[in-house]
Amino acid sequence: MKKAKKIINNPRNVVPELLEGLVKASHGKIKKLEGISALVKTQLSEGKVGLLIGGGSGHEPLFPGFIGENMADGAACGHIFAAPTPDVIFEVTKVLDKGKGVLYLYGNYAGDNLNFDIAAEMAQDNGIDVKTVRVWDDVASAPFDKIKDRRGIAGDLFVIKIAGAVSVEKDNLEEVFRVTTKARDNIRSMGVSVAAGSIPETGEPTFELPDDEIEIGMGLHGEPGVSREKMIAANPLVDKMIEKIIIDLPFKQDDEVCLLINDLGSTTMMELLIVNRRVFQILQNKKIKVYDTVIGSFCTCQEMAGFSITLMKLDDELTQYYNYPANSIGFKKL
Amino acid sequence: MKKAKKIINNPRNVVPELLEGLVKASHGKIKKLEGISALVKTQLSEGKVGLLIGGGSGHEPLFPGFIGENMADGAACGHIFAAPTPDVIFEVTKVLDKGKGVLYLYGNYAGDNLNFDIAAEMAQDNGIDVKTVRVWDDVASAPFDKIKDRRGIAGDLFVIKIAGAVSVEKDNLEEVFRVTTKARDNIRSMGVSVAAGSIPETGEPTFELPDDEIEIGMGLHGEPGVSREKMIAANPLVDKMIEKIIIDLPFKQDDEVCLLINDLGSTTMMELLIVNRRVFQILQNKKIKVYDTVIGSFCTCQEMAGFSITLMKLDDELTQYYNYPANSIGFKKL
Repeated sequence: MKKAKKIINNPRNVVPELLEGLVKASHGKIKKLEGISALVKTQLSEGKVGLLIGGGSGHEPLFPGFIGENMADGAACGHIFAAPTPDVIFEVTKVLDKGKGVLYLYGNYAGDNLNFDIAAEMAQDNGIDVKTVRVWDDVASAPFDKIKDRRGIAGDLFVIKIAGAVSVEKDNLEEVFRVTTKARDNIRSMGVSVAAGSIPETGEPTFELPDDEIEIGMGLHGEPGVSREKMIAANPLVDKMIEKIIIDLPFKQDDEVCLLINDLGSTTMMELLIVNRRVFQILQNKKIKVYDTVIGSFCTCQEMAGFSITLMKLDDELTQYYNYPANSIGFKKL
Repeated sequence: MKKAKKIINNPRNVVPELLEGLVKASHGKIKKLEGISALVKTQLSEGKVGLLIGGGSGHEPLFPGFIGENMADGAACGHIFAAPTPDVIFEVTKVLDKGKGVLYLYGNYAGDNLNFDIAAEMAQDNGIDVKTVRVWDDVASAPFDKIKDRRGIAGDLFVIKIAGAVSVEKDNLEEVFRVTTKARDNIRSMGVSVAAGSIPETGEPTFELPDDEIEIGMGLHGEPGVSREKMIAANPLVDKMIEKIIIDLPFKQDDEVCLLINDLGSTTMMELLIVNRRVFQILQNKKIKVYDTVIGSFCTCQEMAGFSITLMKLDDELTQYYNYPANSIGFKKL
């Protein structure tokens, strides 16, 4: 595979430069913390539980693009595909703590888990309450009985959406933790890749995939999925994916769900809409009601071609928080 | 170049299937007109000037993704990269006319111009007032003294945004036409491509570009730009593009502008943010104030890699209409 041509300057500076670009795009609503790869809202509310998200860079708009009104208060950002360091997470924690503690919310990866846990200890040692919710929505990454080994993928968006709303409404870390955990536990996702993205520093692809093959369940960094198969049409592909999602929770007749069709980098809106058409047909047949549909690029792996499907089962409480408007660069809801 | 692997079913059905997927994603807000490739809002207001947009498919979310609250009322959609036919446009016109006439708003391409003009005649013959605004924002596509030969690219979004707001506020076709024309005349864009998209029906790329080259000013369907050059870093590339945009209007010190950084298909949000950083540096140096920034995938050419920069100069009236919230699948503003 030939090297990708990226619109960048020095490949080593992609993270600071993208964060600066994001700050500029926020028009004063977001600032960078001095000397570290972290962004926070410029206006933080006293007495609010802080919502701190983060993870490796290269998946934009995830994570820093989800800082905003009724969304996250700040993001700790690592290098490309690498967890943020504990000291960065701890610095953001201190800024976000307004006396009610801070919720850590991130994808379930070994490096992130380790570094956020160390930061949580540093915070506790400094008298800051921290609770943690790890997102593990990817049903392809481990069997149900090892759910805590699953990776976090696009389901991050819905968990952040819910957590953002509840953290504005409830000034109680336990309560924010409870509702956010429920959202996490009600979400299932699955992705598929048809072509690799590339690493900015080298231009090399994150994995190799033959021209006529597709990998079902491939992870956000090119981690192996459940099967590598010959390329197939959209409908049978969606059928396979949605079946694995539905049986996992399981989603049942009369359930109400939010649906996310997420582009992993270079899959077109045309394709995502064709996927959405099929998902609706299947859910309608199963009498699962779609409450809202979100389609676009939210959780990416550079220019990887492929998409993921995410379902979040609603109850009255989650619906109430889902309905809050949200205003961030990467996700808006009216 | 190898063939693209698209997530589609029968390549001949991509347009009806994507339109159906979009209708499903609208949750009852948008419907398809029976037997033709056209979408309209399900709730049309009596006494409102209709806003009809449209063009070739394959550029999603443009055009049908911009139907919504304070956005367009309907879209006439052609095959991939082909203008909608006059009869389709005329059918949508009849649905959108609520006694105050219909504004046609589309990109300036020969096929679209011809077909929309024929439809406008059919409408007039049937007693429906029609006015037309063609978007010609692409400064790379013709010199200033041939501005009416220029192509419409991502600037379409800002024109639709303004027209959507004014068409809700003013029940007078002349007035909607006047403000929309002013928005169009205040907008300049320029794009760049580093890799081709592909045509769904064949999987073939829309053009060939050597591995180490970039085409500045390339059009949305692979039309030739102003120069083909060796790949360069983001900053000098942006410098070249923004200079050509600024001198064309020209944008001047103390002007206030809206800025759009548009992905043409597979350029990452990481790259768009790095571009945004540089655009801000340049505009700040020139004392041009950025009122708002929009970053994402709005006007695409399948999975083409590249981006465009658009500036819209504001005045009090345009700012007022820009500030209206907007709610469509492809563009939201709170």
